[in-house]
Amino acid sequence: MTTQNTLYRTLDAQGVRTYVASLPAIAARLGGSVENWTVREVSDGNLNMVFLAEGPLGGVCVKQALPHVRVDPSWKMPLDRTFFEAAYLREVFPHVPDLTTERLHFDPVQFILIVKSLSSHTVLRNALMLGPVNPQIATRIGQFVARSTFATSLLAAPFESVMDRRICFARNQTLTRITVDLVLTDPYHDHPRNHWAEPELTPVVQAIRADAGVLARIDTLRLRFLSCPQALLHGDLHTGSIMTTNDDTRVIDGEFATYGPIGFDAGLFVGNLILSLFSARDAAAQSQQIHMIKLFWASFTEQFLALWATENASKDQAARYYPATQTIESEKEKNIFIENIFQDMIGYSGAEIIRRIIGYAHVSDFSALPDTPTQAARKKAALLFAKDCLDQTHLFRNCDDFLSHLTHYHG
Amino acid sequence: MTTQNTLYRTLDAQGVRTYVASLPAIAARLGGSVENWTVREVSDGNLNMVFLAEGPLGGVCVKQALPHVRVDPSWKMPLDRTFFEAAYLREVFPHVPDLTTERLHFDPVQFILIVKSLSSHTVLRNALMLGPVNPQIATRIGQFVARSTFATSLLAAPFESVMDRRICFARNQTLTRITVDLVLTDPYHDHPRNHWAEPELTPVVQAIRADAGVLARIDTLRLRFLSCPQALLHGDLHTGSIMTTNDDTRVIDGEFATYGPIGFDAGLFVGNLILSLFSARDAAAQSQQIHMIKLFWASFTEQFLALWATENASKDQAARYYPATQTIESEKEKNIFIENIFQDMIGYSGAEIIRRIIGYAHVSDFSALPDTPTQAARKKAALLFAKDCLDQTHLFRNCDDFLSHLTHYHG
Ligand SMILES: Nc1ncnc2c1ncn2[C@@H]1O[C@H](COP(=O)(O)OP(=O)(O)OP(=O)(O)O)[C@@H](O)[C@H]1O
Ligand SMILES: Nc1ncnc2c1ncn2[C@@H]1O[C@H](COP(=O)(O)OP(=O)(O)OP(=O)(O)O)[C@@H](O)[C@H]1O
Repeated sequence: MTTQNTLYRTLDAQGVRTYVASLPAIAARLGGSVENWTVREVSDGNLNMVFLAEGPLGGVCVKQALPHVRVDPSWKMPLDRTFFEAAYLREVFPHVPDLTTERLHFDPVQFILIVKSLSSHTVLRNALMLGPVNPQIATRIGQFVARSTFATSLLAAPFESVMDRRICFARNQTLTRITVDLVLTDPYHDHPRNHWAEPELTPVVQAIRADAGVLARIDTLRLRFLSCPQALLHGDLHTGSIMTTNDDTRVIDGEFATYGPIGFDAGLFVGNLILSLFSARDAAAQSQQIHMIKLFWASFTEQFLALWATENASKDQAARYYPATQTIESEKEKNIFIENIFQDMIGYSGAEIIRRIIGYAHVSDFSALPDTPTQAARKKAALLFAKDCLDQTHLFRNCDDFLSHLTHYHG
Repeated sequence: MTTQNTLYRTLDAQGVRTYVASLPAIAARLGGSVENWTVREVSDGNLNMVFLAEGPLGGVCVKQALPHVRVDPSWKMPLDRTFFEAAYLREVFPHVPDLTTERLHFDPVQFILIVKSLSSHTVLRNALMLGPVNPQIATRIGQFVARSTFATSLLAAPFESVMDRRICFARNQTLTRITVDLVLTDPYHDHPRNHWAEPELTPVVQAIRADAGVLARIDTLRLRFLSCPQALLHGDLHTGSIMTTNDDTRVIDGEFATYGPIGFDAGLFVGNLILSLFSARDAAAQSQQIHMIKLFWASFTEQFLALWATENASKDQAARYYPATQTIESEKEKNIFIENIFQDMIGYSGAEIIRRIIGYAHVSDFSALPDTPTQAARKKAALLFAKDCLDQTHLFRNCDDFLSHLTHYHG
């Protein structure tokens, strides 16, 4: 690590040009010669530098870790997060080749990851803020979560390969610490990283922090996040980690990858759809978001159970889980497995909504609303709904219950 | 590993003598000179060579891994299991110094572990077969399980240190594979490693294998064993891994150490007490075993909850789980945590009983019974009770229910 830090240099646009030119396979994808290439910085996240380099034949996306948080240079951070993003792509790409970007190059000294450029795609959060989107995007994300988690779970592979992967990703401790603190701890206590501008939110924050049910639940969710390694998670599956066109959807930015409960990935996605719902400008957008949550959960469960059935049919009986598909008992255990994911999803979506309104890293969704009072009112409503996600779980036995509560709540 | 294998030599008694003489600190413990030492082999387990070396001042126990299963040289096995036993002692000894043996020496080339000799102690299984024992032994094992698991769980330490330990023990795959196959898979299918001599057992085995509830439950237990890393487990806590005098109890043989559900350690201990109960020669011995299970569970829960309360009192609020001890909700979550351990314990004890009667490695307990028909009858009763542990969990809401079912069943 010491040697690597000595050799490491942060690239600027000119550095990216030179770097790409030095990689024949990547340069060939761009085509033409280096003078015809355009390189532009597109970093808009909190952590890393991101550049798009385009040539006459095609483009690539060049992502480099900084030794600190991009938006806060005083917050130092190890460079190895790019390693985990590259490792995540290596593990999941074979199972979701049409739903993420292929890893074209990884440099473990400069901590540079190169993938194909998605230059005609929009970040889903922005697309949702601009107007209607194809709701099938949610179907695709359901497939993404189902395929990436099933393939890396004990349901699909001998435990030795799962344990080897866990050993790898259990080293991703810096980013796991960020999740544990920023998503699952700080918002529930006074902490200098929390912030919100609207005084109307303060009583709700106080109510959340004074609610023993919420506090106990968040403890359980934190404990489960750290001690329920069901599958390899993306770990940061918000609507800013998804890029889409009307008919193509890709998940990016897997640097938070870790083994954890499948409902965490699902919950982050659903939580961000709910944030989009509460910041929607009209009823049509609201019902689109409701519809998308419904499509997401239906597609996740359908795909996950289909993979499970196929796996059971193809392999040695003794090595499979609940393989006797015809028994009531094995179907019951499978349903419990899926229901647990659902309950986790609700809980983590609540935590995500809360931290995105009062924690360190807010979402831009609400800025689409016309004025500050409206924004404050919607944020307050979202916080109250999130509180229900944490302490009223008995209301949400299934996805229909959950969506009807959400519709009722919002409307 | 290649280099290590080239240098590795299996020791015989003479080799042990020379080896110990070459270690000044160990030789000093024995005292006198090498000619006055006695070295005797005491291996009685399935896997390793064990020698006791004694001198005028004291004795040590020298354990060495073989490149195969001791009782089956055709079953090859990596030597590194001694590393995990040594690593387990390193992790848990500070928390249970009076309940296990201190690691005096570990040789990562010869795979030799040296600990203090317990030459006045008896293996608990043998003691139970010979007659009454001090039932407080069970209290001590309750404390052992509580302290060793609490200290290595997320409840006691920042997740980073837990993850570092998980990374270490997730490499103990050869022995974890043995548990997964021999304890949690093979007995439920036709497999050449299963065996039993008594034809009376065959219908019960068939009933177990035909019971969809049992099969679904064993799948859940296997999945939980591999994906619920609550704490560092001993991993093989049967009555043959415990050595006692009337007033001193020590746990040995932690080579199966792995992160898993706490109820696994508890279940192996309780399962072996139940095997002892079903092979007991008189009613007094039976009620002693019942009493020991009661003492074990009471002492485990009391010690575990006491450690939890102390931990919460001593540390920063935000870093603890359910720290607000005064709320109904946090007490409820803690109780759920303990109840889940209880349910796991029942399940794993059932699996342990079954595999010890019809699987690869049987227990000697039943050989204390006078004749083959009695042995067969008792084994059959134990199997039927174990089946209930797997598919009648609704009967066992708490330890009293469980013990009254057991008393009723047996008596
Ligand atoms: N393959 C790609 N093609 C085109 N643009 C991309 C690609 N990958 C990322 N981008 C752009 O770069 C931006 C930042 O990327 P990314 O989210 O991976 O960075 P980050 O700093 O890790 O973000 P975060 O702080 O959310 O973790 C994206 O929002 C998107 O606009
Ligand atoms: N510290 C000790 N002092 C005295 N005797 C000991 C000690 N440790 C082990 N023994 C004796 O050696 C025997 C075998 O030890 P141990 O159970 O550690 O070996 P093993 O081959 O790993 O067994 P298993 O097959 O159960 O894993 C014990 O049953 C006991 O009789």
